[in-house]
This record gives sequence, C-alpha cells and structure tokens, in this order.
Amino acid sequence: MKKILQIVEAVDFCYTIFMKKEISTESYKGVRDFYPEDMFVQNFIFSVWKSVAESFGYSQYDASVLEPAELYRAKSGEEIVGGQTYTFTDRGEREVTLRPEMTPTVARMVAGREHDLQFPLRWFSIPNLFRYEKPQRGRLREHWQLNVDIFGVESLDAEVEVISLASQIMKKFGASESDFVIKINSRKILNDLFAHFNLTDEQAQKVSKLIDKKEKIPAETFQASLEEVIGDKTAELISLLSDPTKLLNTLDRESQSVFDLTMLMEKLSRAGLQNVTFSPTLMRGFDYYTGIVFEVFDTHPENNRSVFGGGRYDDLLDIFGKRKIPAFGFGAGDVTARDFLETHNLLPTYRASADIFICTLKPELTADALALAEGLRALGVNTAVNLSAKKLGDQIKSSDKQKIPFTLVLGDDEIVSGLYPLKNLETGEEKKVKLEEILEIVKKI
Amino acid sequence: MKKILQIVEAVDFCYTIFMKKEISTESYKGVRDFYPEDMFVQNFIFSVWKSVAESFGYSQYDASVLEPAELYRAKSGEEIVGGQTYTFTDRGEREVTLRPEMTPTVARMVAGREHDLQFPLRWFSIPNLFRYEKPQRGRLREHWQLNVDIFGVESLDAEVEVISLASQIMKKFGASESDFVIKINSRKILNDLFAHFNLTDEQAQKVSKLIDKKEKIPAETFQASLEEVIGDKTAELISLLSDPTKLLNTLDRESQSVFDLTMLMEKLSRAGLQNVTFSPTLMRGFDYYTGIVFEVFDTHPENNRSVFGGGRYDDLLDIFGKRKIPAFGFGAGDVTARDFLETHNLLPTYRASADIFICTLKPELTADALALAEGLRALGVNTAVNLSAKKLGDQIKSSDKQKIPFTLVLGDDEIVSGLYPLKNLETGEEKKVKLEEILEIVKKI
Repeated sequence: MKKILQIVEAVDFCYTIFMKKEISTESYKGVRDFYPEDMFVQNFIFSVWKSVAESFGYSQYDASVLEPAELYRAKSGEEIVGGQTYTFTDRGEREVTLRPEMTPTVARMVAGREHDLQFPLRWFSIPNLFRYEKPQRGRLREHWQLNVDIFGVESLDAEVEVISLASQIMKKFGASESDFVIKINSRKILNDLFAHFNLTDEQAQKVSKLIDKKEKIPAETFQASLEEVIGDKTAELISLLSDPTKLLNTLDRESQSVFDLTMLMEKLSRAGLQNVTFSPTLMRGFDYYTGIVFEVFDTHPENNRSVFGGGRYDDLLDIFGKRKIPAFGFGAGDVTARDFLETHNLLPTYRASADIFICTLKPELTADALALAEGLRALGVNTAVNLSAKKLGDQIKSSDKQKIPFTLVLGDDEIVSGLYPLKNLETGEEKKVKLEEILEIVKKI
Repeated sequence: MKKILQIVEAVDFCYTIFMKKEISTESYKGVRDFYPEDMFVQNFIFSVWKSVAESFGYSQYDASVLEPAELYRAKSGEEIVGGQTYTFTDRGEREVTLRPEMTPTVARMVAGREHDLQFPLRWFSIPNLFRYEKPQRGRLREHWQLNVDIFGVESLDAEVEVISLASQIMKKFGASESDFVIKINSRKILNDLFAHFNLTDEQAQKVSKLIDKKEKIPAETFQASLEEVIGDKTAELISLLSDPTKLLNTLDRESQSVFDLTMLMEKLSRAGLQNVTFSPTLMRGFDYYTGIVFEVFDTHPENNRSVFGGGRYDDLLDIFGKRKIPAFGFGAGDVTARDFLETHNLLPTYRASADIFICTLKPELTADALALAEGLRALGVNTAVNLSAKKLGDQIKSSDKQKIPFTLVLGDDEIVSGLYPLKNLETGEEKKVKLEEILEIVKKI
C-alpha cells in the first residue's frame, strides 16, 4: 500500500513538472494572506499595541516561531504538546514545535539572562502563534498576539499598571469605556471559596473546570454537573457565584485574597478605570495563573465576548530551575481585536502608502517623472510614478483605485514652469503648486 | 526498538514533570532570540526598509510562514523541497513547508487576484524565511528578508526604479556610494555569449554553474573545470568574462541584450547612481530569473561580499496557469544588513522605549507617580514608573542600566509645587520643570 502511494505521488510530481499542472493559488488551510488592505488593518492594530506598550516603558523582544518541544511539556500539561500543536521531528532528531503561545518563550528568555536583566522588567512582543485545530471564527491556525508582561513585581502595582495599559489600548483603538468592561477575578479567592465548602482537591479541580465552561453551557446543565461533584452544596455555590458582593461577605473579610481584590478594585478606580467588575466565574484557560486574572469583554450585544485577558503567574520560571520571579501579563490576539474594531465601526479607512501618483502625458517624460519623484521623496513625500503606457484618464483611474490620495500630471509645460497641478482625488480640488509646497498639502490629510 | 524508545521517552517525560528536571533556556538550534537590544537593531533595519519602500509607493503585504509544499516544487526544482527546507506532513495528510523564500508566495498571491489588482503593482514584505542547513555566519536557519517587487512593467523602467530603491536603502542606512557597488548582469547577454561560442544547452548550463562558483574557487580550478566542458574555447571565454567592455564589443552591438544593458547603465547613471558596474560573472542562484540581475556588494575589505540582490523573472506566474506578468524584484536579508552596518560602524545606539523613569522617594507615592505618568503619556512622553522597593540611588542606577535617558524624582514637595527635577542621565544636567515643558526636552534627544 505504501509502495503504491509512493508511485502515485511520484507520478503526480512528474505530472506537475512536465505537464504544467496548475498549482493552486490558495494559502495553506486555516492561515491568512494579508493583501495590502488587510495588512493596513494589521499594521494599524500593531502600531496601537506597540505605541501604547512603549508609552508605558515596555521594551520589545522577539524569538523564533520554532521552539524545542520540551518547552511546552512541563507546565501547560500534555494537552499542549498533544493534539493541538504543530510538532515535528527535524533531521537531527530534535522535536520542534511551532510556538502555540508566547509565555513559555518569554519565561525561557528571562530565565536565560536573569542575572543581566534589570528588574522590574517590562517587556512586550507581537509574535505569531500556531494551533492545530479546526478553523473557525476567531480561532485560526495562525494568529498574531500582543504579549505584555512585567516581571519582578510582587505587589498589586503590577496589576494596576498592566490593566491600565490594557484599558489604554482599547481607548487608543477609539473605544469608549462603555464599549468594554474589565472583568477581574482571583485564583486565591476561588481557593478560599472551595475551602469554605470543604471541597477536596479533586472536587475543586472539577468545579473549576465547570465554572470555566459556565457561560458556554445551559444553566441546567451547569447545575446538574455541579450536583454530580458537590451534591447539596450546589445551590449555595451558584448563589454566591452570581452575587459577587455576597461572595466577598461570605468569605473571611480579613483574608489576604479578599483584601487584595478589594484593594485592586480601589486602586484601578483611583487610576481612572471606571469599567472594572469583580467576576467570580472568570477562570481563563491556562493552569499557570496563580493570583489575579482579568479579561477585557466587549459589551456590544453582537460581539458579547472576551477580547483578551491575562493574569499573574509567579511560578513559571521554576521549570528552568531558576528562582521564583513574580510575573503579571496578558496576551491580546489580532483576530479578536479586528472583530472588536469591526463591530464598533472603528476600522481605519485604507489608503495607499503613496501620497502622490505622478501621471505622465507621454512616455518620453518618464525620466523626468522619476527625477521629480526623487525630489519629492527627499522632501518626505511618498511618490509613485506611472510606468505604464496607459492614457492619462486610465492612469488617474488606476491611481484612484489604488487609493492614492493625490495625482500630479506631468507634461512639458510643468517641467519648464516648475508649477505642478496637484489634484486631491477625493475632493476633486486642483491647484498649481511649487515642489516645496507639496509636502504641507499632502500631510494635511 | 521502537517500543523501547517509547518507554524511554515516557520515563523521560515523567521525570521532567515529577522530578522538576530543568528545561534548557537555549533557543532552538540555528535561530535567534531577540532581546530588546537586538530587537532595537532589527526594528531600525525594518523601519529603514519600510520607509524607503513606502517612499517609492510600495504597499506592504504578508502571508503565513506555512505554505503548501507543492508551491516550491514547480519552479525552483527538487533541491528546494529536498534537503534544504522544513517540510512535514500535517494530520490532514497535507504536506506543509516553512517558506524558504517569499517569491513563490507573492507570485501565488498576485496570481490569485490578478483581475482585481492594479498593474503596475508595487509590493513589499518583510517575512521570516526558513532553511534547514548548518548554521554559519550570515546563513542561519531563520532570517528576515525585505522583498520588493514590481509586477506588470516590461520596460527597463522597472529595473531603474527598483535598483534606485535598493540604492536608497543603503543610503538611508547611512552608507555613502563608495561603501557599496551595484553589480549588474543580464541572463540574455550570457545566452548570447554562449551562442557566440556555439555551446549546447547542456554545456551552457554547466558553464553557468561554474561561473556562479567562480569567486569561491581558485582560478586554476575554474579554468580546469571549464576546459572539461568547452575545451579550447576556455581561454577566450575567461578573457571575455574578465573584460566586460571587450565582451560587449565581441557580441553583436545591435542585439537586444547589449542594447538593454547599455541603456540600463545609462538610465541608472541619469538617475544619479554612480556606483553601478556591469559584471558578466554575476549569476545569482535561482533558476527563475529571465533578464537583468543585480547585486549590491559591500566594498569594505573586511566584508567584501554580496549584501543583497535580485532580478527580472517574467515567467513565474505560469505555474498557476495564469497569463505572463513581467516582474522585477529583490530580497534583502537582515543578517547581511546587520553585518554591513557593523562593518561600517552604522549601527544605531540602543536606548529604551521609555523617555523618562519616575523614581519615588517612598512607596506611598506610587499612586501619585502612576498619575503623573498618565499625565506625561497623554502629552506623548513614554514613561516608566518605579515599582520596586529599591533606594533612590539604586532606582537611578537601574534606570541608567536600562538606557532610559531621563529620570524624574518624585517626593512630597514636587507633588505640592508641580515642579519636577528632570535629569538627563547622559549629561548629568538637571532642571526643575513643569509638566508641560517635559515633552519638548525629552524629544530633543
């Protein structure tokens, strides 16, 4: 059977080469091509991420998408290296994984130079990540993700700063505080809650998983599943989960977990964030969170979902045999960011990188057009030149279709006079201008 | 045997989990981690690439690193999908390749939307590329590469524009024209040369490969190898290859190939490029070039090598069963760019993303420091805040080590007066300033 497959493959290969079998223009399944219009949006998202992270003094780092597979075994559990990652063996018998998340990588890098780095350490990155799964809305096989982390701060100041940064990203996207809500929870509060109910470790773990699923399953299923695990404690637990204030009152008000949560809410409010709520059912997927977790939620009825989130993970560097370094951070994906922008009508309008398109009245003027373009570029004006044999009308049409905001028609007269007819394609306005005047006009829009 | 390996692996896995075996902090072999200092250089290179490409009106696109393996079979020949790529089979039995170059991808994308796109089409991208090979200087397993291409221009104007753009990149890096030379050759001239010697197709191909190797092998070896293929024609061929003017005079001056090359040299000279030379031994690796090829060479004695290059490839879209679209472009790698910058002492000096570090005289002032930071960020000043319990001297030291140019010490007095002591850590200069004055001072450096 294998032999036959090999023959079939070989025949197919020869056919491709010799019979010019056409190769598909489709991308690989579950990943995206970014044509300029898509790249424009992507660059907009990345530039907001980058500028906000840098405004808080975070430094950018990066690494390869290829990582040793062992990196994902230790903490995230078998699931990660199992069915959901791209893992293969290279010819040197090394197991390689296309990174499914950035946190293990950043932990590796911090652990690798912990003695040279200045703590508290503020870092961000915009990596692409891979998961081997069925493509569906918001869950492609490849996506990009802003990762923001602060290392070396044990106090709640880390939470305040990073959650403020997260909120600032939403505002820089153009969102108002009513467009999103920041949900906050604490692993420690949940532990106290489970202790209050005298749950065993096994029960606590099962209940955690059920709470994580709560929003995705019917209320009756949730209740029935809980009853299977904790029997007659179910009703009280559900009642507490749905009433955060009652939950806090039920727990020991003096406990560290309640104190921290209350303090954090107060600090965030003082820092000007008015859309923060305590949400005891917020779990977040990964096992490595150790304290506060948070999630930015879209409040729009048509996109009522998590935009991104993160939390505290103080133990992750242990796997490299290093001292404990407290850490707090989040990851924000490009697909959910784009969905948010679309839903709230905040997507930027595409325009070409060129400010001006120089049309030529006849082919002999191309060299002059190239020289004029050089002069404009030296002034800081991005300039494209007609290199086609198209008629003037078609040159202008093409420039318009490319979304280049201005055209300039070059003929013999213009070369002699040094006065150029600059036309704004959107308004139709046209004006004869000198070379030096052009920058100011094009930079206005 | 396989069974034993599985057991060994399982034991190893359990050991990792339960005995806290330490995971290595090394990256995967042959790829790089980008700590902030490295990322700073990388961002500098990328921003020069991007700004120059955009100044010529090129639009950015991107795609996934994952591509169907068949994309690399048709044109680049077996070598590519053979030993030198990362190719694996996914669970859907699809063969996937980590892209080793961007040209097949861009050809795929152009072919996929050829009816919607406006030609001439000016596109650029900065992808990461993978090759499975022994790591060595300038040839890592992963590198980044600027790709610039113009589609739809048959005339030499494409060559003039793109080679001007390439030259402009070098100048934007800070290089002068004496720091590099642009070598030009033409596949068509070589074909004419081979016709002049009445070489068979087989001989021509062998000679091409030898010429490609010429600079890497001793002159005697080159001569002896040539003699094996073309016998007594060797001496004349070598003489012509080493004397470009004689070569052009020997060929038919009226031929298209000679006319084109001469015309291109003249046009480039008129466009202001004075460091262009005709180099008949310039081959470039890939099979798909059909006309003019060029290479930017470093003239520094310690780094006398190709920095980057490209050429004309008019047939590549054929593999998708589409009409011929003429294309001219190049790819420029980050590693060779960095080598060039290092050799010529043009690397930028690292500085942190933060402009100011706010030191706090006591921990109770953290909330005020965060509020002040918010005010500074709103003005456009990137600001980091002390969140450690360090003494003032150590806070300043840490800020200095992070290469943050300014510090501002916050105490009770400053909060009352609204006058902040701003210190330039490089010059030692200190001045009491109002909030509104800070932006201007920090943006000056």
